[in-house]
Amino acid sequence: MSKIKTSYIQGKSQGSIQANLEYYSLKIEEASKSGSKLIILPELFLWDYFPITENKKHFDLAISLDSKEVKHFQNLAKKLKVNLVLPVFEKSVDENFFNTALTLNESGEIISHYRKMHIPYDPGFYEKFYFTPGDKSFLVADTSIGKLGVLICFDQWFPEAARIMTLGGVQLITYPTAIGWDEQECRGLSQQALREDELNAWITIMRAHAIANGVYVIAVNRVGKEDHLTFWGNSFVCDPLGRILVQSGTEEDIQVCEIDFSKIETTRKIWTFLRDRRVDSYEPILKN
Amino acid sequence: MSKIKTSYIQGKSQGSIQANLEYYSLKIEEASKSGSKLIILPELFLWDYFPITENKKHFDLAISLDSKEVKHFQNLAKKLKVNLVLPVFEKSVDENFFNTALTLNESGEIISHYRKMHIPYDPGFYEKFYFTPGDKSFLVADTSIGKLGVLICFDQWFPEAARIMTLGGVQLITYPTAIGWDEQECRGLSQQALREDELNAWITIMRAHAIANGVYVIAVNRVGKEDHLTFWGNSFVCDPLGRILVQSGTEEDIQVCEIDFSKIETTRKIWTFLRDRRVDSYEPILKN
Repeated sequence: MSKIKTSYIQGKSQGSIQANLEYYSLKIEEASKSGSKLIILPELFLWDYFPITENKKHFDLAISLDSKEVKHFQNLAKKLKVNLVLPVFEKSVDENFFNTALTLNESGEIISHYRKMHIPYDPGFYEKFYFTPGDKSFLVADTSIGKLGVLICFDQWFPEAARIMTLGGVQLITYPTAIGWDEQECRGLSQQALREDELNAWITIMRAHAIANGVYVIAVNRVGKEDHLTFWGNSFVCDPLGRILVQSGTEEDIQVCEIDFSKIETTRKIWTFLRDRRVDSYEPILKN
Repeated sequence: MSKIKTSYIQGKSQGSIQANLEYYSLKIEEASKSGSKLIILPELFLWDYFPITENKKHFDLAISLDSKEVKHFQNLAKKLKVNLVLPVFEKSVDENFFNTALTLNESGEIISHYRKMHIPYDPGFYEKFYFTPGDKSFLVADTSIGKLGVLICFDQWFPEAARIMTLGGVQLITYPTAIGWDEQECRGLSQQALREDELNAWITIMRAHAIANGVYVIAVNRVGKEDHLTFWGNSFVCDPLGRILVQSGTEEDIQVCEIDFSKIETTRKIWTFLRDRRVDSYEPILKN
């Protein structure tokens, strides 16, 4: 199966887990009507972006992998016969907390369980307060429609993550994301020009991962204002040459995009980067 | 010294080593008049791009590090008091051949001797026929004006190279380059749109190295048509946020660009990527 339809849902938090569950379920149903076999949701899509502040009470918002919320989406994936990338605020059996993304197959089974490896900690993005850094390395989700590499948000700034996914055989890397501008200017983003530059850098680095690795990339952000953060949307899909195929603005949006996996081989025959790596010389990457 | 002026020379081959030596020497003199303390030349700037074909006789074109050509530029660097990034087709004492870039300081001394690590081999770019892959790893050139990471052309497609340079302390990565379109269409580039896409990918991936690592990047390409290759120019400088500061078209060009090294620290304080790497998990990068 060379060509598949994929969808992403660029949504806005509805203020509670239950409200978001209903909101995104409707959107998943809508996306599946297009014939999409893979539907991707934004980072922590069931929650307000709680790491905007540091507050112990937010630990109560975490859910387990056998929670009713996860089961709900397992049933939905099975009913619609779609693969679903499902980001969750995970409470583990031993009471650790992770920023997680599950991959569900068309039968609703969890076939991959990724825990965000790179955890940010910046004004408005206090994730180290909540999340244990991922302990499962970079996992390939081997679905019936192709090999997915699910990473999460901040992972997108690290070429190592995309490279390791590629070396593991992935054809499509997806980044459920929650990124935006901080109106408190605490990240130095007071000027409009700088805001555009940050957005531009965010798109550029993920296009570069596609180019360096000869894979598709799907970035799925949220939108809307939450406290002093404005999530910048601009979710997109790009091909292995880094060409943007579809892109959203700053409003709620569902996009459907056809992915042609045969283009990966075509591109890699032109650009033989993976042939010419110097693995004998990369050891310094293992140090800071 | 936070701010320095740098120049690059986007030149066109004049058909012989001697003609190119004279042509580039004049341009170096011109660039130095702007007050530039660092001048960068394109890959193999003294030669027609001979790897366009495979021909044993081209080995006779290589020069040694104590050749009169290298001495000429050492004298020029000393006379003008500039640092010079000098790409050469190097014949080593034991008759190996390398695609090399020397860094000369203001006294004309060779302070860094980099041998291209990633060697392409594609129709029109038969470099593996000529060049032994670099055996000196990724070297930091510690100049009086800052720490340079000199890489060469094809290296630009490998995030590992830029990352290792950064971990070694470089503030500015430069890529002397010879890249263009092949009119024989053998690289699948028959359509104008695809040509633009390739150029765009080339710029994108180097901007991404700047962003991922919080460093400046200077890419210096050649122009002109040689046999069935048309070198695409478009040399540029970008800052640690990936913002393009100056950029050339497809004609011969000298650009002067002020680099403010203090922006590196500013950017890295906003974007703390280097703080948050997961060096415990990157081992798969050492394999193919």
